[in-house]
Amino acid sequence: MPNSTTMLRPLDPPRRLLMGSGPSNPEPRVLQAMAAPPVALDDPAFSDLVGDCEALMRAVFQASNASALTVPGASRAGLEAALASLVEPGDRVLVGVYGHFGELLCTLAKLHGAQVERAEAEWGAAVDADALANRIRDNPPKLVAIVHADTSTGIGQPLAPIGAACQETGSLLLVDAVLSIGGCEVDFAAWQLDVAVGGLQKCLGGPPGLALLACSPRIEQALGRRRRASHSVYLDLAHPLDVSTTMVMAAREALQLVLDEGLAARWDRHRNASQMLRAGIDAMGLRRFGDERHSVPMITLVEVPLGVNDASVREQLLVEHGIEIMAAFGPLRGRVWRIGTMGTNACLPSVLTLLSGMEAVLASRGYQLPRGAAVDAARAVSRRPL
Amino acid sequence: MPNSTTMLRPLDPPRRLLMGSGPSNPEPRVLQAMAAPPVALDDPAFSDLVGDCEALMRAVFQASNASALTVPGASRAGLEAALASLVEPGDRVLVGVYGHFGELLCTLAKLHGAQVERAEAEWGAAVDADALANRIRDNPPKLVAIVHADTSTGIGQPLAPIGAACQETGSLLLVDAVLSIGGCEVDFAAWQLDVAVGGLQKCLGGPPGLALLACSPRIEQALGRRRRASHSVYLDLAHPLDVSTTMVMAAREALQLVLDEGLAARWDRHRNASQMLRAGIDAMGLRRFGDERHSVPMITLVEVPLGVNDASVREQLLVEHGIEIMAAFGPLRGRVWRIGTMGTNACLPSVLTLLSGMEAVLASRGYQLPRGAAVDAARAVSRRPL
Repeated sequence: MPNSTTMLRPLDPPRRLLMGSGPSNPEPRVLQAMAAPPVALDDPAFSDLVGDCEALMRAVFQASNASALTVPGASRAGLEAALASLVEPGDRVLVGVYGHFGELLCTLAKLHGAQVERAEAEWGAAVDADALANRIRDNPPKLVAIVHADTSTGIGQPLAPIGAACQETGSLLLVDAVLSIGGCEVDFAAWQLDVAVGGLQKCLGGPPGLALLACSPRIEQALGRRRRASHSVYLDLAHPLDVSTTMVMAAREALQLVLDEGLAARWDRHRNASQMLRAGIDAMGLRRFGDERHSVPMITLVEVPLGVNDASVREQLLVEHGIEIMAAFGPLRGRVWRIGTMGTNACLPSVLTLLSGMEAVLASRGYQLPRGAAVDAARAVSRRPL
Repeated sequence: MPNSTTMLRPLDPPRRLLMGSGPSNPEPRVLQAMAAPPVALDDPAFSDLVGDCEALMRAVFQASNASALTVPGASRAGLEAALASLVEPGDRVLVGVYGHFGELLCTLAKLHGAQVERAEAEWGAAVDADALANRIRDNPPKLVAIVHADTSTGIGQPLAPIGAACQETGSLLLVDAVLSIGGCEVDFAAWQLDVAVGGLQKCLGGPPGLALLACSPRIEQALGRRRRASHSVYLDLAHPLDVSTTMVMAAREALQLVLDEGLAARWDRHRNASQMLRAGIDAMGLRRFGDERHSVPMITLVEVPLGVNDASVREQLLVEHGIEIMAAFGPLRGRVWRIGTMGTNACLPSVLTLLSGMEAVLASRGYQLPRGAAVDAARAVSRRPL
């Protein structure tokens, strides 16, 4: 244990290329923003900052009709705040489950007293949105909760039919958009969402530490009708906590960079990054996991070839190449790698670095592959102007 | 609302001298640490970082017997995590209440099902520790919760007799050390605390965004005996959430700076800053609030003179001098100012700047005071080597 004279070595974390399931490497401008001078919570400058941030959030969520708020902490704090605030004991909550984060929604809803009903799909597929919409119309629950894009399976969930059914029936629709926001289309207004929870640390180019929420006018009404307060003081949408300027400054800068790039251009960059990565993976002779029709661009699941050790490859990639990819959860553990192309890493250089590293690691372990083919294949589908 | 072509002006928050109830201005080295390259949560470099941080926390809390953990979010997230994790419905919780943050402990404990009993003192005084200890011995509750130093009143609470009674009877002792940690003595082991919750943003020289907790071995036992899980997934000490490297890097750097300075030297610096500030306040003819025997060094409450408008003075101080002081809560609202001397601002230059600004603002509003006397009085009690 250090005593008052102990000095640790100076902080000097290794440089990593973060191509797992998030966090991704933040934009340098966002990290710089966090070092700007802080202001106090009752300073008019803080109100301006929060106002900027809310306007930017509405633009990025395409939620002109929504109120925007933040919950300090991990993305999970935002998800639990929404459920703790909206669920009262005995409420029926219908959860779409097609991966690990759907399970988390079930756990959170149950903890806050919900009677949870599940609409399931196998890992690697999306929930049948029309069937789910019909189920909502047949017997509308208080709340429908579903993940938009699940890092555990790389699958994206169609939401528009679910939103329409919720709008018709009065059910509320909560969507986990932590992974999707900033990396593919999220149209809060058109899809008729009621709460969407986003995170800074995946496709928005920021660090973890602040959950971003868009809330429809129906949420305010629902909060007003509650029979009792939220299960939590900290996690209560009706009384959002003022937060630090540091994280709000990071969010402002990250969101501004998204809008500077343009939403459509940013989604296209993510799409092309996944095309490059997948062309390379295919050229190495590796197999990809999941229903391609519903795959999202920001994460790619790759099957671990027979005879290759999942963890050893990840460790060698980290130690020799400084590149992080991620293991999988639950039924996929040990069987697939998860490779992210999010935010700053949705680009040709990051994809080529990853493919070169993967190739070298696999080749060094005796896996047979055509050397150089992955990088060539990726370059061939790059739409980046040279 | 911005569309995808809107550009806000570049981030350029005003420079403020934060001398309210916190946050205080962070150490530049801590802000720089936050811009270091992030690593992923399953990177061995992250384990090293967390290990460093835990060792530093044990040293700063003087808690060699404790486990150290962090909760991402505001300090309040740490307090609610402790109560959500330890309180089960119907548990008797005895709360010491002598200001706003004691009231918050009551609210949090009730929300999580406690039968709350109060041991009160007037705002401006401390709770009678010996009487509270006797009350614990007479009828031991499951948990005793009390604030160590309350920003709402500037009062510090003696804890050793309470800790001794809890140790004898088996009651758990939870202490809100958000304000005190790093600014005055906190002796977790000697005072026999079971949970202490600290914040980075007051006397530790960091930004807000991470709650620091020390937990005694009795806490682990209590978590093992729970009949049901915590009220919250996010706020559960039994399953602490992995957090971002960014805030952990900030915490590591801030705690290292505290130990480099030395605990005793740092407490003395805070003590001397309050002596300088108070000498200056007295020399201006202003009155201070609260029981001086129990005042803490990091915040000073000053009565608003009759005929002077609380809010206008604070606004003028902010606009003309860039200095933030804080309004008061509850029964003291409009009647006192709260002036912090925390972390980087527990020093002669910050105190002199504050006193000069206060003097100029009050004089401009017709308040009669001896010009220059405050600064002279503060300089006269400075122990800073020139």
